[in-house]
Amino acid sequence: MKKQYRLRDYEIKIGQLQPGKKNAITDVKGVQVGHSTIREGAIQTGVTSILPHSGNLFKEKVIGASHVINGFGKTIGLTQLDELGTIETPILLTNTLSAGITANHLVDYMLESNPEIGRTTGTINPIVGECNDMILNDIRQKAISKQHVLAAIDNATDHFEEGAVGAGRGMVCYSLKGGIGSASRLMTIGEKQYTLGVLVLSNFGNLGDLTMDGRAIGMELDKHLNDSKSPDKGSIMIILATDLPVFDRQLKRILKRTVTGLSRTGSIIGHGSGDIAIGFSTATKIPHSPVPEPLAFSFIHEELLEDAFRAAGEATEEAILNSLVTANTVTGRDKNTRYGIIDLLNKYGMSL
Amino acid sequence: MKKQYRLRDYEIKIGQLQPGKKNAITDVKGVQVGHSTIREGAIQTGVTSILPHSGNLFKEKVIGASHVINGFGKTIGLTQLDELGTIETPILLTNTLSAGITANHLVDYMLESNPEIGRTTGTINPIVGECNDMILNDIRQKAISKQHVLAAIDNATDHFEEGAVGAGRGMVCYSLKGGIGSASRLMTIGEKQYTLGVLVLSNFGNLGDLTMDGRAIGMELDKHLNDSKSPDKGSIMIILATDLPVFDRQLKRILKRTVTGLSRTGSIIGHGSGDIAIGFSTATKIPHSPVPEPLAFSFIHEELLEDAFRAAGEATEEAILNSLVTANTVTGRDKNTRYGIIDLLNKYGMSL
Amino acid sequence: MKKQYRLRDYEIKIGQLQPGKKNAITDVKGVQVGHSTIREGAIQTGVTSILPHSGNLFKEKVIGASHVINGFGKTIGLTQLDELGTIETPILLTNTLSAGITANHLVDYMLESNPEIGRTTGTINPIVGECNDMILNDIRQKAISKQHVLAAIDNATDHFEEGAVGAGRGMVCYSLKGGIGSASRLMTIGEKQYTLGVLVLSNFGNLGDLTMDGRAIGMELDKHLNDSKSPDKGSIMIILATDLPVFDRQLKRILKRTVTGLSRTGSIIGHGSGDIAIGFSTATKIPHSPVPEPLAFSFIHEELLEDAFRAAGEATEEAILNSLVTANTVTGRDKNTRYGIIDLLNKYGMSL
Amino acid sequence: MKKQYRLRDYEIKIGQLQPGKKNAITDVKGVQVGHSTIREGAIQTGVTSILPHSGNLFKEKVIGASHVINGFGKTIGLTQLDELGTIETPILLTNTLSAGITANHLVDYMLESNPEIGRTTGTINPIVGECNDMILNDIRQKAISKQHVLAAIDNATDHFEEGAVGAGRGMVCYSLKGGIGSASRLMTIGEKQYTLGVLVLSNFGNLGDLTMDGRAIGMELDKHLNDSKSPDKGSIMIILATDLPVFDRQLKRILKRTVTGLSRTGSIIGHGSGDIAIGFSTATKIPHSPVPEPLAFSFIHEELLEDAFRAAGEATEEAILNSLVTANTVTGRDKNTRYGIIDLLNKYGMSL
Repeated sequence: MKKQYRLRDYEIKIGQLQPGKKNAITDVKGVQVGHSTIREGAIQTGVTSILPHSGNLFKEKVIGASHVINGFGKTIGLTQLDELGTIETPILLTNTLSAGITANHLVDYMLESNPEIGRTTGTINPIVGECNDMILNDIRQKAISKQHVLAAIDNATDHFEEGAVGAGRGMVCYSLKGGIGSASRLMTIGEKQYTLGVLVLSNFGNLGDLTMDGRAIGMELDKHLNDSKSPDKGSIMIILATDLPVFDRQLKRILKRTVTGLSRTGSIIGHGSGDIAIGFSTATKIPHSPVPEPLAFSFIHEELLEDAFRAAGEATEEAILNSLVTANTVTGRDKNTRYGIIDLLNKYGMSL
Repeated sequence: MKKQYRLRDYEIKIGQLQPGKKNAITDVKGVQVGHSTIREGAIQTGVTSILPHSGNLFKEKVIGASHVINGFGKTIGLTQLDELGTIETPILLTNTLSAGITANHLVDYMLESNPEIGRTTGTINPIVGECNDMILNDIRQKAISKQHVLAAIDNATDHFEEGAVGAGRGMVCYSLKGGIGSASRLMTIGEKQYTLGVLVLSNFGNLGDLTMDGRAIGMELDKHLNDSKSPDKGSIMIILATDLPVFDRQLKRILKRTVTGLSRTGSIIGHGSGDIAIGFSTATKIPHSPVPEPLAFSFIHEELLEDAFRAAGEATEEAILNSLVTANTVTGRDKNTRYGIIDLLNKYGMSL
Repeated sequence: MKKQYRLRDYEIKIGQLQPGKKNAITDVKGVQVGHSTIREGAIQTGVTSILPHSGNLFKEKVIGASHVINGFGKTIGLTQLDELGTIETPILLTNTLSAGITANHLVDYMLESNPEIGRTTGTINPIVGECNDMILNDIRQKAISKQHVLAAIDNATDHFEEGAVGAGRGMVCYSLKGGIGSASRLMTIGEKQYTLGVLVLSNFGNLGDLTMDGRAIGMELDKHLNDSKSPDKGSIMIILATDLPVFDRQLKRILKRTVTGLSRTGSIIGHGSGDIAIGFSTATKIPHSPVPEPLAFSFIHEELLEDAFRAAGEATEEAILNSLVTANTVTGRDKNTRYGIIDLLNKYGMSL
Repeated sequence: MKKQYRLRDYEIKIGQLQPGKKNAITDVKGVQVGHSTIREGAIQTGVTSILPHSGNLFKEKVIGASHVINGFGKTIGLTQLDELGTIETPILLTNTLSAGITANHLVDYMLESNPEIGRTTGTINPIVGECNDMILNDIRQKAISKQHVLAAIDNATDHFEEGAVGAGRGMVCYSLKGGIGSASRLMTIGEKQYTLGVLVLSNFGNLGDLTMDGRAIGMELDKHLNDSKSPDKGSIMIILATDLPVFDRQLKRILKRTVTGLSRTGSIIGHGSGDIAIGFSTATKIPHSPVPEPLAFSFIHEELLEDAFRAAGEATEEAILNSLVTANTVTGRDKNTRYGIIDLLNKYGMSL
């Protein structure tokens, strides 16, 4: 994996809190991310996996929550996540029309390592998020197959690529090339340090709205580029991880703050943009099988969520910007091209 | 307080689980209920208080939740309860048009014992539920004053009256005299016994729909009584307490099951009926002031909620029926009369 | 299709309102239902389709809504349905582990008749509900293929079978054989008559709780049958159709009343039971493509929903009971057998 | 009313859309705003009213909706607003501890002009929002009386003051003097022009976060001012009006976009900040009394909400900034002083 230049390499810092070592969702210990990418002419798509931990997620669930910013989206698995507050599979991201088949293969993956599902215990709740990559990808081909799903899970590691990769391969953000981006923040509460990380699949927005740390760079680029008025059929998936000991209502409150970062990059939360946040805390494992005695938990006091609220906004904002600056130019279906912002700035003799 | 005849005194038992000793919400240790009643011609109304514990509720909050079955109601305090999952005042019940003034006096009550509110700490979230008693009570008079509110709190005890008392004084249920009713259930989980109790303020329904343990007694009475078609501008408040160690999402799931008991008494959840459930768990106290270290909690495994779900439905059903059978006939505004069901059955030579 | 004996053939009538001609969801004009059933040893499962109208649903959407009674379920499509208030595909029901693949094939079906999807317009939101039929069906085999999905849609008609058929083939309800059931109610508002119909996929409950029109028949059967304590990993899908002109908030209010019927059959809304209602109104078609002028609509006054609330409860109750009395005994995986209630009553010399 | 200098007087323009004539919520035809202000030493508080129209709101309700950004607040009336989608009283804003008494007096006001309430028809749902002004106002005194409530309603007009006035008198925003602010935007859909206006009661945020049109002015001021670390016990109330023909689900979607403007001014949506948006459309009147025939409505196509989404964000952002730049310095309880931003900039020789 070759070095990718990210926002901070251009000396732009978002917010007040310090990032973690990798400035990525994988700064949260145990979290892994994997990609499977298809780059074949009109097919520019893929799958990205986020693993909350590397054990058996069905047997040891993590506390999870979701927040729907705008529900024009086809994410699978939120009904049960909201009811039970737990995540029991890897979270997979892909293109919209492949969400069903991806969920199907994710179920197969879970069945394989859990022979008791459908026999002595109930079923499994696969979580699959999606964005619509129809501009660069021939989405009607539904190119995702079982091997892509399994590869994305198998490839998961704590160092991962950003930009036009995995599910992000064909995504378009602010009329530029978008895709996968990530960032993290450290929080000190009492004497302990906690980490919160975000990974986005960015695929939303009109060029004129793009703002970077207060700079209306979208307007600057809009003078050069003629494509800014293409309809926004976008979306963004925001995956948030933390080792802060929170339960699902607290986690949902944290997820609601991702919208502050999203807004600061310029989003108006367009009608057609399915903007959905899913999060989990690795601090607590919930066993699948019940024990009669009450389970012991530790959760932080509600007032101390304040830093996590700030971290969620900052990390989301920086993750979106990282998805832009790491993305290279991609040409796909019908020779449609979306430029990486760095490529475009270079072309016009501009800089970040 | 003279002995009141309740449903089980007529040898009618609801459901499968055993009730607690008092078969009332006050079987949950520490919970107290108080009434303040006005019986003066056209003024037939009052206040009922439910105290989750007898300490300082602001400093030691209980885990709480709400569930809106039908939101045609003016309950005060749910926005913050849903956000934070805690209750920090007594829960007060009264008539609809007096909800605001009752909240106002409840704030005063809390200010008095908490001088730091509005000085070194923030404000207070009063919780006030209501039903519309306009048939028997001249609700436009807004008869509730500070003394009624304080008396209802001061009178709180673990033995309390049911029927046409407190906030229930002027309420009408299934075209009969309704009001306050209560019931409880015991749950054995592992080797421990837990208690769940319900108190209702019943003020809903059309006579023809009333069902008692499967018997369509409303239809039987409807042949005799001509008042069954008066419009249902009702409502029911359902207050649920438990010592089961649950957090607020779990508690909300329990509250959602109160509707099964409500339905079995015959309710169709009418348009004009504000049907709202509020609950708390006494198992955990949440300190107002934060400490930097994570707080230690115990919560039961999600699968073990099953008994609490059953208990919530059974206790709600029996509490509603208790509110009917304990209520005596009341004549109020414009000489409007609503009969206690026992009075009515006696009149027509019928029995439960 | 041979005549099936339904609840009213046994002279049991639920509620006060009159049913429509077929006493089925297809009494709502234009609504069609289709089944595709697999009966092969350990494989006892299938697909059921509900078509809101027979035109192009993507181009002419119906107003839709959902209500999650208990979210321990894997229904696909609710996020967008809740956001936009429209349904744009047939609603398919199947077994839990096949929900993803069924959504995938439903997408294919929609792509075929809508070549502009993913080209000049956005994507499609497939709606797939599910219950877990693992007792009678080898659910891990994931037997549903594209042909089953297409057949269920192609077979759709306004006369359809109930009981152990389609998605209902392997379902278990109150420890008895459950599956597909339906019922309808007529409502007169002003001078017009409207229809509301319900179709259920029943797969929930413990035998001891089953109640039929007030009769505790589950307890009676429980004395004979030893299987009542098997864990309830059930669920119920409730599909509601009406020609009443309502918008999605009103429709959601109607859907919330299905729980009254569910409760009256004895359900406690168990932890493991994903109880989900999805509804639509055929009175209004929403065009996919925007026009700049405001669209003209007619909706009934909020207060007039009262009859629809009653109808929703009654039709749900009767649909569940119809699913039981029409279901024949089925033997499936591991020779597990679940008895049709009529077979069982006959066996013990009992009657409805 | 003397001329107040607003954001655009300093040549700062927010966003892309044009404001209405007054650049205020009262650009929406029929909407009126009134203030009642107490400026007496330690008592610095008041009431602000927003009237959706000048007729009888109970008899002719407006379509309404709410969106809770962060529910740490005591707003009264949201339960019924969410259930029925209508607003039937003026919306009042005041300080937190006076919310109950203000609701009480608002009920009295409504009773007076509607003698049928509590007699031949049901009750009334007062809507009262609040923020905590305890820094500048001795909130424990609960200074709001009936005369203040009635005056705020009686004073309502289409030209109104901003800044430290009405409910905004004691409010603190970004550690500066906050209060009432407003802005509006025009939208052209098809051949028609529509208006959307916002009024805020601003009382949230830490100085260091304040951003004005991309400029981190809070950080600049923070170098001079030592008060930035006082705890944020704030809140913001956002009232949105439009003449766009939308129904309540569409309106709720619009309200959800107010958070983009809030975020762009720097808010992290702090734990203690009750951030609540309430909106209404004046395009449709809903009669209190039912008629049997379906009511005729016009609503715009869902896709056309896009401009309203942009307008909601822009107007909210500018309204917040207007609340800051119009607010003069106020000294209140315990000689606590919060500076108007213009006063402060002048003091340090800075400019907007």
